[in-house]
This record gives sequence, structure tokens and C-alpha cells, in this order.
Amino acid sequence: MKSFSVRFRVSWVETDAAKVVHFSNYFRYFERAEEEFYNSLGMDFQSFSSYDIWFPRIEAFCRYLSPCRFNDLIEVTLWIDEIREKSIKYHFTINNLTSGKKAAEGHVVIVSANIREGQAVPLPREMVEKIKTFCNMNTGD
Amino acid sequence: MKSFSVRFRVSWVETDAAKVVHFSNYFRYFERAEEEFYNSLGMDFQSFSSYDIWFPRIEAFCRYLSPCRFNDLIEVTLWIDEIREKSIKYHFTINNLTSGKKAAEGHVVIVSANIREGQAVPLPREMVEKIKTFCNMNTGD
Amino acid sequence: MKSFSVRFRVSWVETDAAKVVHFSNYFRYFERAEEEFYNSLGMDFQSFSSYDIWFPRIEAFCRYLSPCRFNDLIEVTLWIDEIREKSIKYHFTINNLTSGKKAAEGHVVIVSANIREGQAVPLPREMVEKIKTFCNMNTGD
Amino acid sequence: MKSFSVRFRVSWVETDAAKVVHFSNYFRYFERAEEEFYNSLGMDFQSFSSYDIWFPRIEAFCRYLSPCRFNDLIEVTLWIDEIREKSIKYHFTINNLTSGKKAAEGHVVIVSANIREGQAVPLPREMVEKIKTFCNMNTGD
Repeated sequence: MKSFSVRFRVSWVETDAAKVVHFSNYFRYFERAEEEFYNSLGMDFQSFSSYDIWFPRIEAFCRYLSPCRFNDLIEVTLWIDEIREKSIKYHFTINNLTSGKKAAEGHVVIVSANIREGQAVPLPREMVEKIKTFCNMNTGD
Repeated sequence: MKSFSVRFRVSWVETDAAKVVHFSNYFRYFERAEEEFYNSLGMDFQSFSSYDIWFPRIEAFCRYLSPCRFNDLIEVTLWIDEIREKSIKYHFTINNLTSGKKAAEGHVVIVSANIREGQAVPLPREMVEKIKTFCNMNTGD
Repeated sequence: MKSFSVRFRVSWVETDAAKVVHFSNYFRYFERAEEEFYNSLGMDFQSFSSYDIWFPRIEAFCRYLSPCRFNDLIEVTLWIDEIREKSIKYHFTINNLTSGKKAAEGHVVIVSANIREGQAVPLPREMVEKIKTFCNMNTGD
Repeated sequence: MKSFSVRFRVSWVETDAAKVVHFSNYFRYFERAEEEFYNSLGMDFQSFSSYDIWFPRIEAFCRYLSPCRFNDLIEVTLWIDEIREKSIKYHFTINNLTSGKKAAEGHVVIVSANIREGQAVPLPREMVEKIKTFCNMNTGD
């Protein structure tokens, strides 16, 4: 299945007194990969924002396998587990390229919502089309 | 079953551009409740630290039910789901006392580990005793 | 001069791999004291928000004197250095009650701004009155 | 004078309920530029760590000029203001390439310290040499 990956280094502020990345920051890594995924698709956040659309999370899970430390180079990979009318389930893995170990895996379920009403609404058509095109591109992989 | 609760207000920095608490911060709220729970038991973090013991998370999950906003008063409640030789599973709920709604629920599994070796070790006896005393106190509840 | 203080414990997530509070978090401690100060005055954030008023910072400074560690009890104290038509300068000190040392001192300048226009506007009258009453209360101190 | 720049996008988690980057995060942007600067020089954090050397901040200042919003492309530029036996003063500017405006400027003073003793020590020779070479490279600029 088609996946999307980003790489970046662990910043000092992301570590804690055990000299490893704080567990809550893995969810921020997941989100950073998601943001770069949307940018790679050319999604227009401004237009979503002007329609008061935003993508809150309704579920988040992470299993921690091996620690990441300051300045480690990590790779976050994202897959689309499921795309429904109003929600998307993303699966993530984090590989620590410095240690050579899988650091974490997890998932996040996002919904499309109206920022004023707080109600779930269908995913923007543009978003669905771009994601489906992305997934089809991968059929040959 | 016996539970432990803490209350605090949502800080501005914990919100995001949707004017609600960022999803990753709920895990930090869980952890803050856990820290205050340990303090309430009189646990001696200094002695754990001197033995190089620390409590990494191996699993974290949250389901988001209703948003929390700046300055909302929230209550985080913790239950001990399971205590094993080397790990504890905590269950959490977050109630938004300002909106009157349940905001989130989730769980976290922590292990006792040696900070140098990174290996799981039995939970400190002092910690197990204090937690079991806490749980027994609740038998009448 | 009249001051306002809050106490709280250092959370694990606020530390970094040097086992001390990350320098950026002192600014969050300053802000938390400011938030609790406003709450102590009975300020109505909802009404400000409904007028699209908010208080961005135009300047922030901190001098670090002594580290804070996990679970240290700290006290953040706030003074009003200067109150002008559209801005307030707050001075802060952080005392580490666990180590018995002064941890940091600094200042922050906030302005009153319209959230849509991004323009500075006069401080809300209610806010100025409450703060002046607070300052006058202290004349006998 | 020779400068070093990095570019990255504003993440959602870095924004607050005013839909702009929270003021404390600018200090994290400064630090991220500093980290990438050290990596660009080929500095060996592992060896510093093995000598228990680390670089706490003793002073941090930021003036905020124009807001940064979600997904804005920003450029953080660093200059060496002063290098002394045990400390370095870095000057920073943040340009918002999306809005075309200067977003912030500030400075940070770091010291070289022994992580166990908490005492200032001379900057590692390797670090001083690499930074001086970097500064000299710029003499022709």
C-alpha cells in the first residue's frame, strides 16, 4: 500500500529527564507527518479555513518500542487505513534511523468538522480526491 | 473501585488554532494526574532516581469526546486497571467541569525500567505497597 | 508593591535531557501566573473573546539563575511594572521552594489587540479597573 | 557577518487559540536553528555528552513583530554576537516567508556547563574551532 514518509531530527526540547523523547511528542510527530502529507498533495488549508473546516482527532493510539534520543534522525511513515465519508484513519510507524530500530507505531482517527458548530461534516471533496489519487498512484507499488 | 482525581484550568498554551486543547496535551494531562497521584501516596522520586529507576510508557490511548477550551476547569480521574510485576495499566477520564461534558477517556501502560540499561525491572516494592494500600483503602467505597 | 503568586510542581514533560526544566517553559510558567492572576481578579475571558480582544506579547525576557527539576515546588510571582493605554509590562520571579534558590526572573510586555484586525486597541476598561483596584489594595503593603 | 539559516513550516501544535504561533515557541525555533547550526558544523554531540558537557541558557529575549500562522513557511537566521571563554551570545531573526514580514528577533546566551556539577566550564575546544572557522569563512561575505 502507498505510504508517505518524512524525516527530521529529534530536538532537545522534545526530550525529557530520562534523556529520551517524551511519549506525548510521538503524537506530535504523527501530526507533523500528516501536515507534510497534506502539503505534498497541494492541499489548500486557507480554503478549508475559510469554510471553517478543520480536522479534530477522535482517537489516538501509540505503542512505544524503542526510545529516540536528542538529535536522532527519525522517519515517520503514514498509511491510510480507512477513508470514510467524514473520517480518515491513519496508521503510523516511526523508525529511528540513528539506532536502526523501530521506535513506535500507532494510529489516529480524524474527522472533518465545522469549527463553529463542532459537528462532523463530509470531508472536503478536494481532499478526498487528492488522497484517492495518491492511493491509486500506489497501486503499482 | 478507588480512583484519584485532580483539577486544573486549561492554559492558553495548551490550545491550538481551533481554539480547543491540542489532542497531544490530553496525554500530558493524564501524566500530570499520575504525578499528583504519586505525590499523594508520598512516593519518593529521589530514591527511584538514585536507583536509576524510571517509568516509561509502552502504550498510550485516548478517545476524544468533547473539546476543552481556554480556562475551562477540568478534572482528570485515574484508576488502576491492572498492576503486574513490572507494569501498571492506568485508566483515565477527563471531565470538563465548565461545559459539564466528558471530554476524553484513555489508558496508559507504564513499565518500571532501569534508565541506563533500558530494561524492564520489577516495580519498586515501596511503590507497589503504597499503591496496594491505596487500592485497599477503597474496598469500602 | 503588590504582587501575585502561584505555586505548582514541575511536571516531567517540562524537563529536558539535562534533567532540568527546558528554558522555553519558564515563559509558560510566567503565562500561567498571569492567567491565574486574571482569574483571581474575576476577569471575564468570555466577554473579551466575544469582543475579539486578546493579549499578544510584544516582548519577553528571562534570566536563568538556578535550575528547576522534576517535581520541584516552584512559586511564580508577578508584579505590574507599568500599565499604559494599550499595554502592560509584567515583571516575574520564579523561586524554587525545593532547592531554596531563586530560579529565574524576567518580564513580558502584553498589548491589547483585536484578534481579527491584529491592531492594538485600548485595554478593556474592566481589566484596567480590576488591575488598578488590585494595585491600590496593595498600598498598605 | 556570517549567518546561518533554516527554514521550516509552522505546525498546528505550535499555534494557540488566537490562531498564531504561541510566543514561547519562538524560543524553540531559535533553539532548532542552533541545533541545525551545530549539525552543519559537524559537531559531535555524543562526545560532549560523554564528557557531561551541555549548554544551558542563561538569558533569552524575543521581540515579536508580526504573527506566524499554521503552515507559514518561516526562516530562522542565527548570528554569533559574541563568543567568550565559557559562553556564546546568539542573535536571531525570524522571517515569515509566507507573509513577507519579519516576525521576530531576539537573542540567547548559552554557557558551557558540566551537567553533574552545574558549573560553567570552558567551551569545548572542538566547538570553538568549528565556530571560528565558520565565522572566518564569512570574512569575505
